Order: sequence, then C-alpha cells, then structure tokens
Amino acid sequence: MMNVNKYTKGYFMPPVVDMNWAKKEYPDKAPIWCSVDLRDGNQALIIPMSLDEKIEFYKHLVAIGFKEIEVGFPAASETEYEFLRTLVEKDLIPDDVTVQVLTQAREHIIKRTFEALDGVKNAIVHVYNSTSVAQRQQVFKKSKEDIKKIAIDGAIMLKELTEQAGAKYRFEYSPESFTGTEPEYALDVCNGVLDIWKPQADRKAIINLPATVQMSMPHVYASQVAYISQNLKYRDNVILSLHPHNDRGTGVADSEMGILAGADRIEGTLFGNGERTGNADIVTIAMNMFALGVDPKLDFSHMTDLIEMYERVTRMHVYERQPYSGKLVFAAFSGSHQDAIAKGMKWREEHKEPHWTVPYLLIDPEDVGRHYDADVIRINSQSGKGGVAYVMEQSYGLDIPKKMREDFSYRVKDVSDHKHKELMPDEIYKIFHDVYVNVEEPYKLIDFSLSKQQDGSIKGQIHISVHGEEKTIEGEGNGRLDAVSNALQKEFGIKYTNLTYSEHAMDIGATSRAMSYIGITAENGEISWGAGMDTDIITSSVKALISAINRMEH
Amino acid sequence: MMNVNKYTKGYFMPPVVDMNWAKKEYPDKAPIWCSVDLRDGNQALIIPMSLDEKIEFYKHLVAIGFKEIEVGFPAASETEYEFLRTLVEKDLIPDDVTVQVLTQAREHIIKRTFEALDGVKNAIVHVYNSTSVAQRQQVFKKSKEDIKKIAIDGAIMLKELTEQAGAKYRFEYSPESFTGTEPEYALDVCNGVLDIWKPQADRKAIINLPATVQMSMPHVYASQVAYISQNLKYRDNVILSLHPHNDRGTGVADSEMGILAGADRIEGTLFGNGERTGNADIVTIAMNMFALGVDPKLDFSHMTDLIEMYERVTRMHVYERQPYSGKLVFAAFSGSHQDAIAKGMKWREEHKEPHWTVPYLLIDPEDVGRHYDADVIRINSQSGKGGVAYVMEQSYGLDIPKKMREDFSYRVKDVSDHKHKELMPDEIYKIFHDVYVNVEEPYKLIDFSLSKQQDGSIKGQIHISVHGEEKTIEGEGNGRLDAVSNALQKEFGIKYTNLTYSEHAMDIGATSRAMSYIGITAENGEISWGAGMDTDIITSSVKALISAINRMEH
Repeated sequence: MMNVNKYTKGYFMPPVVDMNWAKKEYPDKAPIWCSVDLRDGNQALIIPMSLDEKIEFYKHLVAIGFKEIEVGFPAASETEYEFLRTLVEKDLIPDDVTVQVLTQAREHIIKRTFEALDGVKNAIVHVYNSTSVAQRQQVFKKSKEDIKKIAIDGAIMLKELTEQAGAKYRFEYSPESFTGTEPEYALDVCNGVLDIWKPQADRKAIINLPATVQMSMPHVYASQVAYISQNLKYRDNVILSLHPHNDRGTGVADSEMGILAGADRIEGTLFGNGERTGNADIVTIAMNMFALGVDPKLDFSHMTDLIEMYERVTRMHVYERQPYSGKLVFAAFSGSHQDAIAKGMKWREEHKEPHWTVPYLLIDPEDVGRHYDADVIRINSQSGKGGVAYVMEQSYGLDIPKKMREDFSYRVKDVSDHKHKELMPDEIYKIFHDVYVNVEEPYKLIDFSLSKQQDGSIKGQIHISVHGEEKTIEGEGNGRLDAVSNALQKEFGIKYTNLTYSEHAMDIGATSRAMSYIGITAENGEISWGAGMDTDIITSSVKALISAINRMEH
Repeated sequence: MMNVNKYTKGYFMPPVVDMNWAKKEYPDKAPIWCSVDLRDGNQALIIPMSLDEKIEFYKHLVAIGFKEIEVGFPAASETEYEFLRTLVEKDLIPDDVTVQVLTQAREHIIKRTFEALDGVKNAIVHVYNSTSVAQRQQVFKKSKEDIKKIAIDGAIMLKELTEQAGAKYRFEYSPESFTGTEPEYALDVCNGVLDIWKPQADRKAIINLPATVQMSMPHVYASQVAYISQNLKYRDNVILSLHPHNDRGTGVADSEMGILAGADRIEGTLFGNGERTGNADIVTIAMNMFALGVDPKLDFSHMTDLIEMYERVTRMHVYERQPYSGKLVFAAFSGSHQDAIAKGMKWREEHKEPHWTVPYLLIDPEDVGRHYDADVIRINSQSGKGGVAYVMEQSYGLDIPKKMREDFSYRVKDVSDHKHKELMPDEIYKIFHDVYVNVEEPYKLIDFSLSKQQDGSIKGQIHISVHGEEKTIEGEGNGRLDAVSNALQKEFGIKYTNLTYSEHAMDIGATSRAMSYIGITAENGEISWGAGMDTDIITSSVKALISAINRMEH
C-alpha cells in the first residue's frame, strides 16, 4: 500500500503570485529554442551515443532549424571534447548557429573548455550549481550564503578567464534544482551572478530556470517564472530560459505557460528524451504553436526520417502516442471517427477550406510527412462502414454504394474479429472480391448478346450455366440490364424487386476495367448485394446482377 | 516545408473568462475517477481485447480502487454485450462499483443496452452527440437547433425508457467535441438535457466535457470548464466530469486545471492509452496528487504487475519515460545525479526524515514497487564514482574507500565506453575483482606467519613467489601489516609511502569473508590501489597490500 503521509509540498510560492500571464491564450511567437539532445538527452541513454552518432544527430538539429545547440561538457570526457572539435574542424557549425557548452567553474576545466571551443564563432558557456533546499542540506551541506558564493565565484572566474582569452562567449547561469529552491533565494543568486556579468544589449546573458524535478502544477511554475522575470536585474539584457523536465507529465505545459509568464527561451529535446521522464518535448511545443497558426521556426516535415535517425542512434523508441510523432497519433479505428474524418476530408476538398478543420485530426498528417492511406483510417473489428469504404476508395478506387457499405463492413468486422487482427487494405479488398465480385455459383454467365428492337426495347439472349449445365435463355426489357434481369427471372423463377445499380471505371494493374454494383431485394425483404468486374462495362453489370442473384440464393 | 497558414485557432473562449482557479495550487482531494480503458482504450488498439482479456483488465481496475468503470457499448457489438453479461453473471461487480455503458439514443439500442444491464446494481448510462462547429457543418450538416434537438430527444428517450423499465440508472451526457464547440452553445445544450432529467441530490446527473481533440492550452480549457461549472443548472445535483485527450501533450494539465476550475470527476485511462495520442493518464494524475501528500484513493503499489498485464492484453507498450510507470523514470546514469541521490538516501536514513526529499527522485520508487538497486543507480560511461560505489555497496556489500572510488570509476567508465553498453552490477563487480582483488603477479603470497615480540612489535615470515620463484622473507613492524610491508619493501627494494588501509566483512555465496583495501603512494606520487579477499581477515589485508604493490609495479 502506498503511504501518502511520506509526501508533502516540496516547492515554494513566490512572495508575489502574479497569474496575469493566464490572460494570454497561447504564445504568439516562437521562443528561442535550444536543443539539449546531445547532453541531457545523451546522458539519459542506456547506451550513450558515439561520436559519429552525435554528429548525425547534430546535423538533423541544424536542418530542423535549431540556432542554439548544447553540445555537451567538453572538459568532462574525451568523447564530448572530440565531438566539439570535429564540429569545428569539419566546419559543421553554420554562422547563425551557436553551440552551448557546460562547464564547472574550476580554472583548469574552464581552460580546457575554451580549448575545445577554439575556432567556434558563436558559443554560450553554461555554468550552474544546485540551489535547492534538499541539495544544500543533503548533498553540499552548505548554507545559503555558501551556495550563493559558489555561483558568484563561478561567474567571476568565467568572466575573467573569458576576458583573458580575449573571447566574446555569451554566458548562461542555471540555479539547478530551481523548482526545489525558494524563488526569492534563486532570484538573489541569479541577480548576484548578473551583477558580475553586467550583461549588455549586444551580449545578453542567459538565466535558465530548470524544473530539474517537476514538483508543482504548471501554473505554479509559471508564477515562479513570472516572479523571476519581473524581478531580474538587467532584464532587458537577459534572456530568460526554461529547462523543464517531465516528472509530473507536464513538461509541455510548463514550457508554454512559462513562455506566457515571461520566458524567452526553451531548452528541451526531440520527443522529450532526457533524464528519467525526460525533458520538455520541443516537437510537441513547436507543433502546438504551428497548429494554432504560429510559425515555430522549426521544420518537422521530415518527421519519419527524423524518427528513423533518432531511434537508431539513441536506441530509444518514440512512443506510439507521442503527440505529432507517434505511429498511432493519426490512427482512427472506430467507425464514428472514421466516418467523420472521411466526411471532413470530403468537405475540405469540396469547399476549398482555407483552414484545417477536419474532425479528430488536430493537424493535417501530411504536414509531418504522414499519409491518410497508411496512417489515418485503419481497419479492425471496431471499425465501421465509413472507414472501410474510405480505405477501398483510397487504395483501390472502389466507390461502393452507400447502402452496400454496411453489409460489407459487417463482413470486414467479422473477419477482423475472427482473425483477431488489424486488416490491411489488400486484405479488405480480398474480402470484397471473395464475397461480392463475379460470384459464379449456381449461375455462371458464359456469353450474351443484346439487340435493340424497332420499338426501342432490348432483346437479349443469355448463354449461362446452372450448376454446370449450359442453357440459353431469352428476355426483353426497356434497357440492357432490364432485358437480362427479365430473362433470368422468367426462365429460372427467381423473384426479387428494387434493383439498384451503379458502376464506375477502375484501374487494377495494367488493364482498365469497370466495376458494377447491384442490390436486389428478395421476397423476405433482405437486400442481396453483388458486384461484377470486367473490361466491358455491360458485361460487368450482368456479372454484378448474377453475383447478387447467386448470393441471394445461398 | 510545413505551411503554417493552413492553421488557425479552432476553439472558442467563454464569454466570461475566470482564471480564479489558478489561485489554488493543486487539487486538495481526489476527484471521482472513471476508467475508460475498456472502451476508449480498447477502441484505440490495433488488436482490440478479447472477452477474457477485458475481464482480466477489469479485475485490475477494481483492485486499484476504481469505483466507476466504463465497460463499453453493449448494444454495438456481441463482445461488449457478452463482456457486461459475464461481469453480471460471474458476480464481478462489487456493490460499491458502478459500471458505465455508452448508448446511442435510439429506442432499440437503449432497450438492448438495458437487457445487457439486467441485474446490475449501479449503472451510469452515457449518451452523447457531437456539438462542434466542424461536426455540425461537415458531418451532420445540421443547425445548432437541430443538433441541440438530437441531445434533448435523446435525453427524453433515455429518461422515458428508464422509467418504463423501472430502473434507477444514473445518466451522463457528453457534448462530444466540446473543445471545438462554442462554450455558450455547449452550456445551452447541457442545460437543455438537464431540464429533461431534473437531477436530484440522490440521483445526480453527470455532465462530461470531452477534450475530444485538444485544441488549446490547458488554462483555456480550464476557463471553459469554469464557465460551464458556474453556469450549469441544477449545479448541486450535477457531477461535472472531464474527458481530456492528449493531442497537445497536456492531458494531465487539462485534468488537473479542470479540477481546480470546478470539475468533480475525471474520465481517463491507465498510462494514457486511448485514441491517437491517448486519454488523460490517470496513473500520472493520481500519482501527482500522491506526491503532494493528497490521497488519490487509487493504489498503484503493484505497478510492475499492472504493467505486465496491461502490455500483454493491450499489446501496447508503456513508454520508458511515462511518469511514475516507465522503465527509466527512476534511472540515474549521470555521476552528479547518482552522487546526490546516494547522499540524499544516506541523509534520509541518518536523519529519519519524515518526508521524502531525496534529490532527483520525485517519489520513493518503492511506493510503486520499484527498487533502488535495479532501477535507480545505473551504470554506463556517463556515470561517476558515487553511482559505482553505491551499486557495489547495494549489490555486494563492498564499502570501497572514498579515495579509491575515483580510480575504480574511471575503469568502469572505460569498460562501458569500450563495450558501448550499460553495465550490470555483476559486470561491475567482475571489473573490480579482475583489477584489484588478489592480484598475484609478479608477487604471490603463499603463506605467512606473524609472531608478537616481547617489546610488542610484530615479526613476520612471508613465504612468497616472485615470477614463479619461491622465497621466504622476513620483516618487523609495529603491527601485523606493518611487518609484512616492511619485509616486502626491504627484501625487494619496493618503495612507497602513505599506506591507507580499510577492511570489512562481506558475504558472497555461502562463506563469510573479509575484504581489505589498501592504497599506497609510489615515488612518482601516483596512488596504487589493491584489494584482498580471504576468509581470514589478516590474510585479506596482506593480499590487498600485495595486490597494490603488484598494480604499482605494472
């Protein structure tokens, strides 16, 4: 049994709680994005990425449009050092991309970091120390003053060594474990650091507020962000950054509300990879903006390639239901959803809708390189006539008559239920073909001829086999199909009414053919459906009628 | 390239926007939970659950503590009908559990639903129709008035047929696709339904607001919920329910903020299974409350069993980073996190902390049946001395001296880097053993004897082989180890200083043994570490010394 008494609130409200950010509905422009896939993401992997894998991942990040990319802790390991050097030496850092490096505030480590940065045009050097109550007490066993001094001393050393090196690196400071820190104290430490750095408009400092462990609801985090944003010194020359994790499953909400509350920048990862429950998922945050018509300045149109790369180099798996990226996020199995999506797609086409409004789909799957056929309408025992008809139309060009769809969908449902599996379009087409098309028992068409009489009526001679025995029968009608129908009814004593008929051309393989659909109502009131396929349109209709009769008989 | 102009805001703000809910920090009591795993969840599966699988899942839901469980659409499929009948006939519905069934508002379907409910003590009958702008326009092609009439007619029919049946079922109405509906209109439809039902205190109605597709940020949804909550008729006799999906990755935030904004009840699923991006994850929402000291009234202490069942019957996979439940959510690979966690655990033990405050871990993994050894401190090339030492202590009882840990951790890191894999405790122990313990080249202890002199000093005779050649050497010292050390230094000309020594008993297998650790400083200033293991404590220390010497020599 879980013991709830073990837990209590571990975060702190700011002295002034300002929820005015909640008046804004959503961010109206993209924040500065910083990918931490190659550091936070990498250190959370069971098998960290190799040098080549990191370079491949980095290239994708640049292609997506990231302008700030954290490349690791170059002084901490040979691999991370080599990685940065390779980026420099192979000229893989575009002029508009800034690399970010982490370092501890120790002289030889900073110097080694600067060696790694040699030749980099734009860099952010990121120092941090943990400021939370728990870490002060349990890990560092130091007072508030001592912990603040660590930050200040680090800021001084970084500034001096950078000046000595004649470099113009930008600086970032994170009060790590911010969410477990008193906001006033975190503010005091950050302002202390800023007093050292004295950021200028042309060389802004970054103050980054990590939700190292999410401890509160997102609006509480946003109120902490608002407090810091409103009380930071040199605010105009400070970029306020957030680094949310996802322990409470609200990394996306933390990021979005934090932006409304004053943050300018988000550190996160693709698909929310990262320590434990992961970081804020930049794909979702960016696509959420996109879905509201705000340009996220990141391009995820090649999502499938991106996922292939990500899964290969991280050995992680993109969750099937991960927003915008998971395999199942556009899938509709249930009949009512399929029906609404099919109608919405049709409406969209017919009305040239300027905006995306299709029910059940937040965005057009095509925007992230996914496809209606394969990804949206999927058929299992939960599916209905709308979905089945849609798939047959998309994949095989079949325009099954509305009234026939229900009959067909029950058959599909049965097969899926019985086989206990999802059915692919080819399997569904096979069911259609086996059940309805060119059914030849007991009646099988061998040949027929039709001739127009002087009074305009049609006379037909039909050569047919019945249980294998050949016969030629005759009939008349006011149309071709009518003549054949009359002959069959008269000669064999078959009784039906309400013949409905439709047909269309279709292409399967090399030959163009016609598909005809016929429904007839038997004496007991049940409708029997048949279909006929032939290169000749009249033949297809006769075959459809004979199929319907054969199915009625059985 | 993604075309952002295709998108615009698809939701509607309420006429009065009240964000007062944001003054509350988190829900102070559990909402009514309703599991929709067996309907929403099931219809989102590639392979829907079989009857037996549904029953197994249902039993887990009851065991967790769900008091309301949606069991499907019994009139829509034979399986769902059979499922409900089986629950009744096998007496699987406890008196305090209410089953919820979906139905369309059509007479024969309601009657069939009531047949399925025969013998059920507590039931909720749930009717719904889609009210969004897009569905009215594209799917139903009906006016607001017509769509409202569908709801009202359904409410009347359900009420009348229930009265005719002499049943006391509770009613639920959902304006499906609520998030794409004008809030005033949704309110009008809901109040129209309530005017028919006229709910009483002893038979409350449920009004459920589905975020069928998430279209806005969570605070916007909360403002919609607040507006409905404040303007519903019969409010005291209405249970306001939410059914959030997760298209924008904010299903948890929608649920939590919706509760603050006035909702009484949450419909969701375990691990957020469900259509497309899934439903609100009840595990996360409940555990988020738990982690703040609020009793969620659901028990997830058997999470591992639950996941085993869930993955087997749904054929879905719980994402590695899914909060509270994923395989990696407690994993710390990085050195600094491991170190802080180890210190926090030690602090917790020493200070008998009443509340959980361990850094980097939102909750105690043991509360959901996970374990420190296997799940938390995990070792790869990103890990440091703290983590490695912790794992060796937990798994093998090794108390490696602080100064030796760094040396050891570099070796572990190297192996992990080289093998490109995570290392399990047995692999790490093997590295320790191979590198440090009982190293026998070039010096190998064969035997020794120590005797106390009259002056209290110790005299030792050591029988040793050097490169395979046996020798007996002698030495004196003020202690046993000192005597052996002096003999070795004198006879072989070995030079070192600063011998540090520690030892402890340990159990490996059946025999109790001692492990000794010795560090010596060579002339070049480098420390060489060795360890000795033996059933005899003195022997283990001599072996440790010889190991250290052998490692220095090499």
